[in-house]
Amino acid sequence: MSSLPSNQTVHVQLAERSYDIHVGAETLSQIGTLVRSLRTVSHVVIITDTNCQTLAQPIESHLRDAAIRTNILTVPAGEPSKSAVTAADLWEQTIATHADRKSVILAVGGGVVGDLAGFIAATFTRGIDFIQVPTTLLAQVDSSVGGKVGINLSSAKNMVGAFWQPRLVVIDTNVLTSLPDRDFRCGLAEVIKYGVILDEDFFSYLEANADAILQRDPSALTHIVARSCRLKADVVEQDERETTGLRAVLNYGHTFAHAFESLCGYGQVLHGEAVSIGMLCASRLAELLGRIDHATTGRQFELIRKFGLPTEVPDVSIEDAIAVMQKDKKVEHGRLRFVLPTRLGHVELVGDVDPQLVRQAMLHQ
Amino acid sequence: MSSLPSNQTVHVQLAERSYDIHVGAETLSQIGTLVRSLRTVSHVVIITDTNCQTLAQPIESHLRDAAIRTNILTVPAGEPSKSAVTAADLWEQTIATHADRKSVILAVGGGVVGDLAGFIAATFTRGIDFIQVPTTLLAQVDSSVGGKVGINLSSAKNMVGAFWQPRLVVIDTNVLTSLPDRDFRCGLAEVIKYGVILDEDFFSYLEANADAILQRDPSALTHIVARSCRLKADVVEQDERETTGLRAVLNYGHTFAHAFESLCGYGQVLHGEAVSIGMLCASRLAELLGRIDHATTGRQFELIRKFGLPTEVPDVSIEDAIAVMQKDKKVEHGRLRFVLPTRLGHVELVGDVDPQLVRQAMLHQ
Repeated sequence: MSSLPSNQTVHVQLAERSYDIHVGAETLSQIGTLVRSLRTVSHVVIITDTNCQTLAQPIESHLRDAAIRTNILTVPAGEPSKSAVTAADLWEQTIATHADRKSVILAVGGGVVGDLAGFIAATFTRGIDFIQVPTTLLAQVDSSVGGKVGINLSSAKNMVGAFWQPRLVVIDTNVLTSLPDRDFRCGLAEVIKYGVILDEDFFSYLEANADAILQRDPSALTHIVARSCRLKADVVEQDERETTGLRAVLNYGHTFAHAFESLCGYGQVLHGEAVSIGMLCASRLAELLGRIDHATTGRQFELIRKFGLPTEVPDVSIEDAIAVMQKDKKVEHGRLRFVLPTRLGHVELVGDVDPQLVRQAMLHQ
Repeated sequence: MSSLPSNQTVHVQLAERSYDIHVGAETLSQIGTLVRSLRTVSHVVIITDTNCQTLAQPIESHLRDAAIRTNILTVPAGEPSKSAVTAADLWEQTIATHADRKSVILAVGGGVVGDLAGFIAATFTRGIDFIQVPTTLLAQVDSSVGGKVGINLSSAKNMVGAFWQPRLVVIDTNVLTSLPDRDFRCGLAEVIKYGVILDEDFFSYLEANADAILQRDPSALTHIVARSCRLKADVVEQDERETTGLRAVLNYGHTFAHAFESLCGYGQVLHGEAVSIGMLCASRLAELLGRIDHATTGRQFELIRKFGLPTEVPDVSIEDAIAVMQKDKKVEHGRLRFVLPTRLGHVELVGDVDPQLVRQAMLHQ
């Protein structure tokens, strides 16, 4: 154990909803102690999916060793589980475990499991404690912070949910060693995003340590996950419920990305891939508006390429993409609005952008 | 209009979740102005049931006159609508109205509609504004204050939900004129409860004005509804999320009542009827424990009788009733705990009560 890189703790400061994120290699071996340190927890309901069952089982053993009664509820892996039908099923299964107000929901999985299990926690007996063990890089750097939980409707994603902060997040970077390459890279897209929007030094760190990161070096992983969580926490602490508009900076690259995802069909382009391309479109748009020089886009392009993420706009109709962006729920009266860099480490919300420039940003290769 | 009794406003003080309850005859004619006064509301989704549609339609007209876009969603009347299936249906219907984060959910109905619509408001796009127009006396004096919203599971009531305060409550006592007698009386049981637990003067007012109340005199109704809301608000303001235990005083008579309801079968004994009998059992239990004299029970007995509510324990097995109470989710390790009066206007939580005395309190007629 002595050769392991040190763990890092990110404290998310949200008044009485404050909590810690523990990041490191082998943090899961300490989960019994971490859960016990919250308060006297006597019952934990673990919610996981068919892909993560093998991770959930040792967690269950650790909790039982800490004299905590446990149950595991498993949903099918994949986005379709983030539904009202699965939620109803989990509510009934949770009460069948004899859970009460003092029970805790613990999510083991990626974003789908975290969002779904968090929604169960937010609503079971009007809200019980929630612990997250995110198992993908994307979930570790994105869903661990912010408290957004919920399910999809048949016609729209994330339309039903709550803001429900976890009491504790345990991130074990060791679980990333078995993550498929494509999923690992998708997580890196969001990591790059934090550098561009909030922290030039972090962006430089990613450039300088790209090889170690791609080799999934434990120290490098602990650093990039902890730093990403800290940067997101800085934003969320100032705009917990998305009311001041500040949280919008986290959407850098996402307006374009959502259009590509929606036009390419589910699973064709993954979220992190769409975000990579979207960031480059947004950066080129900032160039066209005279906000940044070409070199700023160039550095993003190189890092995205280095991380094995796509840089080319997918084969979709540019007009269809514009139409999707104009229908985005964050758009008012069809006016296009984007989060654009002014330099590496700083972005601004820019409203009423000329659609002609948006077209040009997507056409430019 | 000049002959109408004056309206009363009850302010519920809950930091940034504070709101007003407007009580009076014909308050509904002002609903357009009241909703407009909140903020610029452009879209209201009215949720009602098949019994209250005729009340919802004029409300929709008033809102349209105030230049607010409206939709009405109707669920079947009755407790079975408070389900995950109906909630899923309402979420889909709500998004189909093109509702967004700035839309408002307005409930027109009794407790079932209020709880269900409030749950939709608490969860749609992670929470939107909620307005209540309670149409039964029980909903007016009980569900208007407290922010408890939710649905039932197949095996247990109110197991899923949230604390979600309304932004505004509009109570029109005129809607009570068409309320069936039995439902009206059930609401009076909760009104009596507020007198016993918190306000002897109010209890005396009920005794002195029983005839006017039973004749549904507008002034008397406005007074008893506003006073009941004020008394409940005093409790909720000090224990919004049911964490300090103070809110437990509102359960006076309810431990016995839940046992009777559960053993008599749905619809045989109504909630207010069970509460009436439950209050008398609790009061007799307090006598047996030497906490009050017989006259204190006698005054409650007389008022309950005067209001046409039942006073006799229903034909259930006393042992079964004890067993149900010992399984109550508020009970720890099967130890019986009751809210008991020390005098009219004051109650205390009394733990570890001898089951033999509980039996005696139910057997005594």
